Amino acid sequence: MMKKILMSVALLTLFAMGGMAQEAVRLPQPDLSLGTTLTEALQKRRSDRMFQADKPVTDKQLSLLLWAACGINRPDKGLLTIPTAINAQDIEVYVCTAKGVSLYNPKANTLTPVTDQDIRLPLAERQENMATAPVFLLIVSDLSRFRSNAEHYGAMDAGYASQNICLMAAALGLKTVPRAMMNRKAVVEALGLKETQALELNHPIGY
Amino acid sequence: MMKKILMSVALLTLFAMGGMAQEAVRLPQPDLSLGTTLTEALQKRRSDRMFQADKPVTDKQLSLLLWAACGINRPDKGLLTIPTAINAQDIEVYVCTAKGVSLYNPKANTLTPVTDQDIRLPLAERQENMATAPVFLLIVSDLSRFRSNAEHYGAMDAGYASQNICLMAAALGLKTVPRAMMNRKAVVEALGLKETQALELNHPIGY
Repeated sequence: MMKKILMSVALLTLFAMGGMAQEAVRLPQPDLSLGTTLTEALQKRRSDRMFQADKPVTDKQLSLLLWAACGINRPDKGLLTIPTAINAQDIEVYVCTAKGVSLYNPKANTLTPVTDQDIRLPLAERQENMATAPVFLLIVSDLSRFRSNAEHYGAMDAGYASQNICLMAAALGLKTVPRAMMNRKAVVEALGLKETQALELNHPIGY
Repeated sequence: MMKKILMSVALLTLFAMGGMAQEAVRLPQPDLSLGTTLTEALQKRRSDRMFQADKPVTDKQLSLLLWAACGINRPDKGLLTIPTAINAQDIEVYVCTAKGVSLYNPKANTLTPVTDQDIRLPLAERQENMATAPVFLLIVSDLSRFRSNAEHYGAMDAGYASQNICLMAAALGLKTVPRAMMNRKAVVEALGLKETQALELNHPIGY
């Protein structure tokens, strides 16, 4: 009997943790030789709202998008491509695909699996057509890193990361749009987010 | 007597308007042939806090910085280099130098003089060493353009514009840092801002 109970507890724990026990997956190094100029990316920057379901975003593209969003550009100091208020480094980016959700680790350049759930439909919310995008990047701000003005600074820092995603998508010939709309309750539950982890923006990305 | 009173009213009105009666000044067209790649700009993006007082930012550089911040990239539709929440186009950028302050008009690519006052010291606030920067770009959000979540969206949109200023400064070999600190009362008074015009960030820029 005791054995059965322990087994159930173990199974429940595994279930509750979802994919979190899985190992981090290494991303390809971001290919910084990409030739698109800054002004070309700024000229091409636009919001697109229709995505082909059958044309995937490659790991190589993903690596550049994530590096732009909040990657390390000065490895000696651990500093980022984006400034953050009081250097709080509050921005977290989740990669959401049909296979589940992973968290980007800028220092290790890896993805840590968070859940096997496909949350693209809750992210699309009322704009269901968006859910065909092969990948969504979800920008979260860890508000616990601020002592004051957390909500304000979190929003601002999300803007920095989001602009870089817009520009890198444009540079790679990909489409995207930053959106504040999402089914927040469903997303928080699927990812097991804390109250201090604010859902700021999501970016469907594709062709 | 009546004539004298009318004259005084006219003079007072002129005084109250400060330099606002002056004509807008045309900027050079932004030179979109700038060769720096997006990844180079992202690699160089950093916050610098010391500026040479005697090395000016040229009008040509200013034109690119402002175009990046919130310029028009699709003239046929009047759409911008940055996305803004609900396409509110709430971002206003003021150019602050020793000669005074002007407001950037993205559509006309001009600067409208606002005041002859040098507000760089109030912008630097307690970090007085910043005031040596030859130019500050001041990012304001017109919160009256939002029906809800104005403070949140204004902060986010300021982040978009600020990241583009960071990247363009890096691409041009200029230094900058985005700062929320400023003497808000003094700045609001000098520019005659409304309560709904939120002071979001300022960028000292120089060498």
